[in-house]
Amino acid sequence: MYTWIKDAVIITMDPEQPILNSGHLLIADQEIIYVGSDAPTPQQQEHCQRVIDGRKRLVLPGLINAHTHIGMAPFRNFASDLPLDVWLFEKLFPMEDKLTAEDIHWASQLSIAEMLRTGTTTFADMYMFSGTTADVVADTGIRADLSRGLQCFDDDFDLATDRRIQEAVALLDNYHGAADGRITVRLAPHAVYTCRPRYLQEVAALAKERGVGIHIHLSETAKENADCQAAFGKSPTEHLADLGVLRQPTLAAHGVHLADSDRQLLREFGTAVVHNPGSNLKLGSGVAHVPALLASDVTVALGTDGVASNNNMDMLQEVYLAAVLSKGVFQDSVGVTAHQALEMATVAGAKALGFPDLGQLRAGMKADLVMVDLDQPHYYPLQDPVAALVYAGQGSDVALTMVDGRVLYENGDYTTLDIDRIQWEIERLTEDLFQRR
Amino acid sequence: MYTWIKDAVIITMDPEQPILNSGHLLIADQEIIYVGSDAPTPQQQEHCQRVIDGRKRLVLPGLINAHTHIGMAPFRNFASDLPLDVWLFEKLFPMEDKLTAEDIHWASQLSIAEMLRTGTTTFADMYMFSGTTADVVADTGIRADLSRGLQCFDDDFDLATDRRIQEAVALLDNYHGAADGRITVRLAPHAVYTCRPRYLQEVAALAKERGVGIHIHLSETAKENADCQAAFGKSPTEHLADLGVLRQPTLAAHGVHLADSDRQLLREFGTAVVHNPGSNLKLGSGVAHVPALLASDVTVALGTDGVASNNNMDMLQEVYLAAVLSKGVFQDSVGVTAHQALEMATVAGAKALGFPDLGQLRAGMKADLVMVDLDQPHYYPLQDPVAALVYAGQGSDVALTMVDGRVLYENGDYTTLDIDRIQWEIERLTEDLFQRR
Repeated sequence: MYTWIKDAVIITMDPEQPILNSGHLLIADQEIIYVGSDAPTPQQQEHCQRVIDGRKRLVLPGLINAHTHIGMAPFRNFASDLPLDVWLFEKLFPMEDKLTAEDIHWASQLSIAEMLRTGTTTFADMYMFSGTTADVVADTGIRADLSRGLQCFDDDFDLATDRRIQEAVALLDNYHGAADGRITVRLAPHAVYTCRPRYLQEVAALAKERGVGIHIHLSETAKENADCQAAFGKSPTEHLADLGVLRQPTLAAHGVHLADSDRQLLREFGTAVVHNPGSNLKLGSGVAHVPALLASDVTVALGTDGVASNNNMDMLQEVYLAAVLSKGVFQDSVGVTAHQALEMATVAGAKALGFPDLGQLRAGMKADLVMVDLDQPHYYPLQDPVAALVYAGQGSDVALTMVDGRVLYENGDYTTLDIDRIQWEIERLTEDLFQRR
Repeated sequence: MYTWIKDAVIITMDPEQPILNSGHLLIADQEIIYVGSDAPTPQQQEHCQRVIDGRKRLVLPGLINAHTHIGMAPFRNFASDLPLDVWLFEKLFPMEDKLTAEDIHWASQLSIAEMLRTGTTTFADMYMFSGTTADVVADTGIRADLSRGLQCFDDDFDLATDRRIQEAVALLDNYHGAADGRITVRLAPHAVYTCRPRYLQEVAALAKERGVGIHIHLSETAKENADCQAAFGKSPTEHLADLGVLRQPTLAAHGVHLADSDRQLLREFGTAVVHNPGSNLKLGSGVAHVPALLASDVTVALGTDGVASNNNMDMLQEVYLAAVLSKGVFQDSVGVTAHQALEMATVAGAKALGFPDLGQLRAGMKADLVMVDLDQPHYYPLQDPVAALVYAGQGSDVALTMVDGRVLYENGDYTTLDIDRIQWEIERLTEDLFQRR
């Protein structure tokens, strides 16, 4: 049985046929089997379980949020406009210590609801109680690359008995490849300033042994760079390269403060940088030089970071920021083009996360896709669908989100989530969280 | 007869009671007569023609878009990601020459639809066929400050016979104070680089004679500054101050490239700067130093600019950008606070446009207001309504827009606009426009 999307504007991100102004898309189970200008054959049409009217709709590949912390949902709109140190050490960290698995259960549900509602079909997460998040991912039908955040401030550690490592290994054992392959797992040493060098080395060795990738924060702030230089006489990128971390497939979040030599290293190691423009702006971290990264042939994906520093999970807002920020800040109206920005959230995200069958709409790819409602004043005249989506669009324009061939969100309704209950639980637990000792 | 908004979260922008977590708002005709924690009296309740349930809704003052060109709607998504000179001289200007009054009629309707749908209740416009726009403003019920864009490249002019001046004077005569005071008019010499010095002087004198304000572009690009310095040995601000232009109440759009001495002049003359962060980014103009402007006590309002360089009219996106850009670009996580950014779109906008009874929700003010739907995942937990709206919100969250006591937009429906017809006409005329000689 097929699902047929009929007569839609389609942004495929496939260089063979980038845009279809009135295209057809045919899905069998979890897979796209046709994208093009021709309607399905009469025989195929007979076997369609659902025909989706694509008129005044735009179809694009599901968006890939390549760096976030979805368990942070209770900290949305908490303690804004403060100096970074005050926010982090006095406000956020003490609250994070109080989180329970139940909090993460509801936070994960809320964040997944928000992602589905705004067109994200895959996310890469680094946080705590990741097994709880994995269960929610399995149940809700979204796709995710998960990792337990790791840190170690003390040289006197034993990886075999480290609590966080044990959690990370359990996550690997229980969930890597789980839920029909919708879940993958990697190891996530938090950053050079929260992990001792030998710890980074041993985590990298463990990742190699297990054949999994790394997820880490890299050169987010000028201070991180200065401290690393003072302690080790190297940039964070050089430090990670020397410790063997970058030899594993690595998601390096932020990359705000990178030198030419760092970009060369990242290219050589095939490290993917995850640009988080919204978070980098809000926290005063700076603006990553995306044009230089792209010119150096580094894979640049896109992420929202956690909602404590964003404060939403709308990937189309990040796509917009990726396209306009470099133009404005480096005073070049070409900068990152609309197409390049959308590539970061689709093709590059898939490459960064190691999903070869995501990021484009063409036969043989997974049926992860989004439909945007073009029947709104800000989409008239449409003229250029990519420019329209990137410069005028927003996440709330999403009318339908499909993951693995299954519609998970459509016109306000969720297939697998009880949004009223989730919102109620989040309100309750946030209130409770702020009263906990 | 009254309209009663009941049990809403209210951001008043009134320092006396900034936030009400469950507040009431009472409207009589065009005016707000009560904002506070108490429900109306039983007698008042009897005389309510409408009670609006405010639960899970946020009420705020109507947003003020202080710089735009709404007639540019047909150029949305046209010719993106080009060098500025190519875009402007090869693409945009030749197309603008083809515009007719009928085009502006439909473009104005589309833009007003988009503004009402995203919470804008007042806008300041500078363009052509402004009388046509004024008629649409009168008919649709929105509020506007209108001006005919003026330019003069030749010293050999006579103001009395200049075509654009005649149109501007006709606009003044016919529309200043029209539509129950919903329309005001000012004179709009385009910029220092499109108006000869004597022309600027004479336009300023005319504005003084007629007792109206000025709307002008100021220091939008580094090139504008360099050219002005080369031609006149002054910054654009100094040039306008010396020519007497700033002696009139002035809306100065952009202000991206201002020196300390310019900011002092703007403060002394009481000139309002209109920040257009989205347009300044997209066109590669740079990032205005808003913290320095605010520290210099300059009034800073907010605008979208035209959709050719934005590409939408969502003021909440501009509020977001105003709050996060200065943090990120100047690497200061305090920067422009959420409250300051919202002030720019409300209180400062009202001050800049010279509407003393707009920008706050309190008794005696005009009933221009917006209701936002908080019953969505990205508003949970709410915690801080201003941070939530500014950092997590977007224009599509607007559920109701009221101007002068009249609901003009509510849950997808417009009171005064036929959106299907408008969208159809815009598609038709844009196609036609690109084929015109």
